[in-house]
Amino acid sequence: MRALAVVPHQPGSLALTEFNAPVPGENQLLARTLAIGVCGTDHEIIDGKYGEAPEGTEHLIIGHESLAEVVSAPTGSGFSAGDLIVGIVRRPDPVPCPNCAAGEWDMCRNGLYTEHGIKGAQGYAAEYFAIDPGYAVKVDRGLRDTGVLLEPTSIVAKAWDHIERIATRAIWKPRTVLVTGAGPVGLLAAMMGLQRGLDVTLFDRVDTGIKPKLAERLGARYRVGDLARIDPRPDVVIECTGAPSIVIAALEITSPVGIVCLAGISSGQRTVQIDGDVLGRTMVLENDVVFGTVNANRRHYAMAADALAAADQGWLRMMITRRVPLSSWAEAFKRGGDDVKIVIDFAMG
Amino acid sequence: MRALAVVPHQPGSLALTEFNAPVPGENQLLARTLAIGVCGTDHEIIDGKYGEAPEGTEHLIIGHESLAEVVSAPTGSGFSAGDLIVGIVRRPDPVPCPNCAAGEWDMCRNGLYTEHGIKGAQGYAAEYFAIDPGYAVKVDRGLRDTGVLLEPTSIVAKAWDHIERIATRAIWKPRTVLVTGAGPVGLLAAMMGLQRGLDVTLFDRVDTGIKPKLAERLGARYRVGDLARIDPRPDVVIECTGAPSIVIAALEITSPVGIVCLAGISSGQRTVQIDGDVLGRTMVLENDVVFGTVNANRRHYAMAADALAAADQGWLRMMITRRVPLSSWAEAFKRGGDDVKIVIDFAMG
Repeated sequence: MRALAVVPHQPGSLALTEFNAPVPGENQLLARTLAIGVCGTDHEIIDGKYGEAPEGTEHLIIGHESLAEVVSAPTGSGFSAGDLIVGIVRRPDPVPCPNCAAGEWDMCRNGLYTEHGIKGAQGYAAEYFAIDPGYAVKVDRGLRDTGVLLEPTSIVAKAWDHIERIATRAIWKPRTVLVTGAGPVGLLAAMMGLQRGLDVTLFDRVDTGIKPKLAERLGARYRVGDLARIDPRPDVVIECTGAPSIVIAALEITSPVGIVCLAGISSGQRTVQIDGDVLGRTMVLENDVVFGTVNANRRHYAMAADALAAADQGWLRMMITRRVPLSSWAEAFKRGGDDVKIVIDFAMG
Repeated sequence: MRALAVVPHQPGSLALTEFNAPVPGENQLLARTLAIGVCGTDHEIIDGKYGEAPEGTEHLIIGHESLAEVVSAPTGSGFSAGDLIVGIVRRPDPVPCPNCAAGEWDMCRNGLYTEHGIKGAQGYAAEYFAIDPGYAVKVDRGLRDTGVLLEPTSIVAKAWDHIERIATRAIWKPRTVLVTGAGPVGLLAAMMGLQRGLDVTLFDRVDTGIKPKLAERLGARYRVGDLARIDPRPDVVIECTGAPSIVIAALEITSPVGIVCLAGISSGQRTVQIDGDVLGRTMVLENDVVFGTVNANRRHYAMAADALAAADQGWLRMMITRRVPLSSWAEAFKRGGDDVKIVIDFAMG
């Protein structure tokens, strides 16, 4: 079978490569890949900046945003042929930390987890894969076009789960949400905010192209320009850019008892400046919180599956701005233009 | 009666001044002050940098860390003559925000609260005061020498309450705690950490005098020097200095899933530098949290009363390094030396 693989830390090594087809274990599902989403982490991996092949192998098959169809499933597994599934990304180490042992590998404390398509485990960008039922998430069959958005939605589901847990600090609950960065994660965060009945503003650098249209159809305000002048003052900021200057601006603009959720990753950032009074006074006097969140556990995938099933399917399809057949895979990694989410379509061949 | 009062924003205006004795309302307690603790906020007020007199008055009676004895109480109030009480500091505005309306004025969102001895309400550094039973907290009669520590302990009780709420993000619970700043708040935070069975390290600038002795008797490790090399790596940091450089160091040293609680206030801080990767990457990949906390609600005063009653009374007495009679009040505001908590003793006259 064919799979998209790199030799980690060799920029330009990404290729459609022939691998042995997987032989599912007695208790495993065999799945045929339908679609793989491309995200920033994939670009870091193909640029040679990130990624780790499974022990004893040279190649890392990429792909962590998956959608696949079950080909065969053991009886009693809860799955049957034709089911749509998404593979969970992270797996705990055989010697798990207390969070991993409880299935909350997204809160891993020792860093010994593996991640399919990223770190020490083969990804889903292969024509077929075998998977333990415990790491497969069933998706409504109506989501054949959009279920590939489940993994990025799971990231956002975790962000919302933690915002809601942290909000138990106070009786009052947040109402106004600002999402910085109108990429796929930001748009899905806005979608889940609106599903919660909140007032949502999306902030981005560009005010042309499809992003403002996606915000409008979703029912979110769309803003560009000076973050310091944003109105209304947000109770919650979901920061999806990872840019330290945006993180610091977010800290400064929240309302009292504000929550800033850092969901974006950037690297190689220089030292930045922050007003000493923000750390030494404002955050204290206003009872503000800032927290980072990464990955998702099974509970968050389930929340995400519900959120996607309840969403406007036309809007989700509009977010997938390009579907590239596997045979033209290189097109899927060309950046620029007005893309939001690019998907590699394995079913198109 | 005599009371310690300032004309707000007039440095050097602090004086022992004659006021009319309070006449308690039908449903109020009349209380005779036993002791008042002095803290950093009092210094800001007497230095003219902070503080606000009640509407229509020129003087602000200071004193927010109180201990008093009930002189008279309405029947059915739950109090009787001879009870020891502490007055709650913050009061919601007559038009309360949702948190204030629910009694959680420590999480006030509109800033319209008043604070006894600080902002728009007379303090407790008066020979007598009248108080609504709903804002008086009963203290075990055995705590006549140490009950004046209840208010700073309530600040710390809130910090622990919120650490524990935020820790519901993960299954695993923190075990190692670092407290930065071995002043009264830091020492009481360490005390409550040890009462929870945690491993506690106190960090301070000085390694001479009474602070290391207090740490030793408490059962906490005591460290000075380079915060970046602290061992063990803390799961929780309770930051009590308010110094932005310490806040930033705290952010960098926590273990994954770490919690940094900002409980110290400083002002007039310059812009400080922070590694962009801490905000743009480390906090996200490690699921770290930083939060600010100020003030306390009634629930936290109750937690604090329990914590003080369970504490080593000799250790609490050791923390009160000077007891100054009211007649020598000026001595209580002289800084320097090896003091931890200075108390003005109203019973000594």
